[in-house]
Amino acid sequence: MTTPTTPTTPTTPATAAAPPAGLTEAVLDRAAGHRLLDELQDRPTREATLPGLERIAPGFPDWIVTSLFGGTYQRPGLDLRDRQLLNLATLGTLGGVDPQLTGHIRSSLRVGLTREQIVEVFVHLAPYIGTPKALAALRVVAATFQALDEQDEAAR
Amino acid sequence: MTTPTTPTTPTTPATAAAPPAGLTEAVLDRAAGHRLLDELQDRPTREATLPGLERIAPGFPDWIVTSLFGGTYQRPGLDLRDRQLLNLATLGTLGGVDPQLTGHIRSSLRVGLTREQIVEVFVHLAPYIGTPKALAALRVVAATFQALDEQDEAAR
Amino acid sequence: MTTPTTPTTPTTPATAAAPPAGLTEAVLDRAAGHRLLDELQDRPTREATLPGLERIAPGFPDWIVTSLFGGTYQRPGLDLRDRQLLNLATLGTLGGVDPQLTGHIRSSLRVGLTREQIVEVFVHLAPYIGTPKALAALRVVAATFQALDEQDEAAR
Amino acid sequence: MTTPTTPTTPTTPATAAAPPAGLTEAVLDRAAGHRLLDELQDRPTREATLPGLERIAPGFPDWIVTSLFGGTYQRPGLDLRDRQLLNLATLGTLGGVDPQLTGHIRSSLRVGLTREQIVEVFVHLAPYIGTPKALAALRVVAATFQALDEQDEAAR
Amino acid sequence: MTTPTTPTTPTTPATAAAPPAGLTEAVLDRAAGHRLLDELQDRPTREATLPGLERIAPGFPDWIVTSLFGGTYQRPGLDLRDRQLLNLATLGTLGGVDPQLTGHIRSSLRVGLTREQIVEVFVHLAPYIGTPKALAALRVVAATFQALDEQDEAAR
Amino acid sequence: MTTPTTPTTPTTPATAAAPPAGLTEAVLDRAAGHRLLDELQDRPTREATLPGLERIAPGFPDWIVTSLFGGTYQRPGLDLRDRQLLNLATLGTLGGVDPQLTGHIRSSLRVGLTREQIVEVFVHLAPYIGTPKALAALRVVAATFQALDEQDEAAR
Repeated sequence: MTTPTTPTTPTTPATAAAPPAGLTEAVLDRAAGHRLLDELQDRPTREATLPGLERIAPGFPDWIVTSLFGGTYQRPGLDLRDRQLLNLATLGTLGGVDPQLTGHIRSSLRVGLTREQIVEVFVHLAPYIGTPKALAALRVVAATFQALDEQDEAAR
Repeated sequence: MTTPTTPTTPTTPATAAAPPAGLTEAVLDRAAGHRLLDELQDRPTREATLPGLERIAPGFPDWIVTSLFGGTYQRPGLDLRDRQLLNLATLGTLGGVDPQLTGHIRSSLRVGLTREQIVEVFVHLAPYIGTPKALAALRVVAATFQALDEQDEAAR
Repeated sequence: MTTPTTPTTPTTPATAAAPPAGLTEAVLDRAAGHRLLDELQDRPTREATLPGLERIAPGFPDWIVTSLFGGTYQRPGLDLRDRQLLNLATLGTLGGVDPQLTGHIRSSLRVGLTREQIVEVFVHLAPYIGTPKALAALRVVAATFQALDEQDEAAR
Repeated sequence: MTTPTTPTTPTTPATAAAPPAGLTEAVLDRAAGHRLLDELQDRPTREATLPGLERIAPGFPDWIVTSLFGGTYQRPGLDLRDRQLLNLATLGTLGGVDPQLTGHIRSSLRVGLTREQIVEVFVHLAPYIGTPKALAALRVVAATFQALDEQDEAAR
Repeated sequence: MTTPTTPTTPTTPATAAAPPAGLTEAVLDRAAGHRLLDELQDRPTREATLPGLERIAPGFPDWIVTSLFGGTYQRPGLDLRDRQLLNLATLGTLGGVDPQLTGHIRSSLRVGLTREQIVEVFVHLAPYIGTPKALAALRVVAATFQALDEQDEAAR
Repeated sequence: MTTPTTPTTPTTPATAAAPPAGLTEAVLDRAAGHRLLDELQDRPTREATLPGLERIAPGFPDWIVTSLFGGTYQRPGLDLRDRQLLNLATLGTLGGVDPQLTGHIRSSLRVGLTREQIVEVFVHLAPYIGTPKALAALRVVAATFQALDEQDEAAR
């Protein structure tokens, strides 16, 4: 048999229902997530992602913002600069996700990483992910820096 | 500068705050997630995962249950059998995640997939993921079926 | 030493020679494979793949059709809708294979998957393959749906 | 609707039906495939794979032998030593497929690659796949060489 | 024709020959590399890797130490804590490289990352690499922490 | 604490300092590396890579040339044709690194591989890496061959 999963209308809000005994409740803070996203992403990145995603998959953008930026990002231990270093490493290792890498390069600059440091991330990783993937990531880095310079030019 | 992300004490619960204009609110139903997990996972699988994970990463098990089983799994369009087919394909394609694959093979049987169908998933995928990864997945399938048979034996 | 593998002129056709004792003979039905491909692929997809592939690698298109569509696809247990769900999951997990994903999105619609279901495949998989790869797949989905709409427009 | 794919009883054998106009017929020679496998694999490797695979997925071993060793391996241009170099590179790049890598290391020795050359394959690839995957492959290489030495010891 | 690459006896040491016009000379400092490795790796990790690797691939351990720890690690911009965050992210994303991940978890503790932060690395990455790979990495983290505790016990 | 890695000004050149007892010294020959690169890469490939890379990451191109072409490529056992077969297999297996694959296809022709053999590399690998990645690689092969033909045309 195959049970259809009709969306359960949440009679109890996520943060109201307690998790089973022995499990710590996870933070899932929609408002904090959207605030953090505004801090991390510049307008071009935000506009290049959420609206188009909402059109094709309604509710998925809010899931991403609440579960990630309002969830895992809200946990203690790592600051935003640390988290962006991790994101850059992971996206460069995955490969083939250039638009996401572009957005995270822009966000990395916003949380205090310098252009030099962003370049060094992929030079450092070259012996770990292989030079082909490192070169692919550096191509995206160079293109993103150039786009930012042209943006600044246009803003003058 | 690097902004420390001290966990925001959620003054407003996730489902209370409204997403920004233009975004549909995502379902994040903790109670429904834990109910669904109980339906999907047998006791051995559940006990092999959540408690140990809670010990090392408090709050992460509840995040997984609420965001996945209480979140993406609650969306309409696909039933649980469809979702398990997708999970099996993805885990076999990723490779190197045998414990997760084992758990999802067990869950697949619970939502109506037959042993033959689970085997055919990886025979079908062989030309898409390559025979080496297909053979690796089938090795896990065979081991899981054997463990289930021994479990049944013991239960007699 | 290195043994050259000059192509063996098949004195005995594939399905005539019996496999060694203990092995079940595999179905490798060229005619059935080409019939199934005609059912699965629309003209644009077919014309975008086989002829160009034949020019650069003569015999490889027929190998794909006979071994896959006339081979693994002919095995019992899974229907074509199941197989397309598996293909979508695998291509989204692999990443970097957009033309193949585009073709399989078109084929998925032909075997009964709805546009909504194809979108939900990648929303469901997001927590398993990671949001970057899920967003990359959804970008291909959106582009494919738009191309189909323009095709329909043109056909009017 | 979902079309069930009941296995088509091949009224016409694979090599009898002609491919559509414009496509070259692929070689799919079952007998040649099984002969080649006997040449490539030593008894331990063969016995570690096919029988167990036949038990769980009847017909899949014969599909592998006929489509690969009786198919793609029968094409001209590359000799068996070339093909084993490619297999070693691919299995080391994929990672997480140690049993397959072990079998192909054994086969590589049978087609004329030396132990030193097999080691150098992964030293050469280290900067391309990253040192972590290269070290993982070399661990399998060392274990396989040791197993072969113990085998020889026992054979004395 | 195939040009054999007989190892060139370096008439000029690496750092003596100047790179072509327009290229900056890379730092490749063997002594600094071995010093840094002593700082990064504890004895168990070092002994688990280099000697065995030297036996099977003479010269490869020194290549790794000089090119990585004496090369890319010597470049400015990122400190050792940053580099370990990148290494953890990459190894968790690659998957299937548990011994390397174990060594880098131990090194991460030596450069100032806390156990909590190492755990948070993989909780943070879960939505980017997928929960299956995050759970696989956390399993290695838990095993490494336990081994370190037992090591401390034994040392008492 | 986080130790800053200020670039160690190499008081002793790489090939002067001896590795620790028990480790064989690796060849790292800058001059040989740049000579080999000139042999392997045609002008278009070289100009498409190193200068742009030097601009964004000064010193990284020389690191690649000295550590790879002056390092791992200088080890005995495999000739350049063997090494290119390995490179093609690895790049096709990684996927998503088209510019690197393009360069290595051009280099493969320079060390004696024929166009037919380069095509067969990916036909052979199809059952190992999956047909989607094989088709993606063959698309790059076809585009590279066409670019070479147009180059020859223009040179007339």
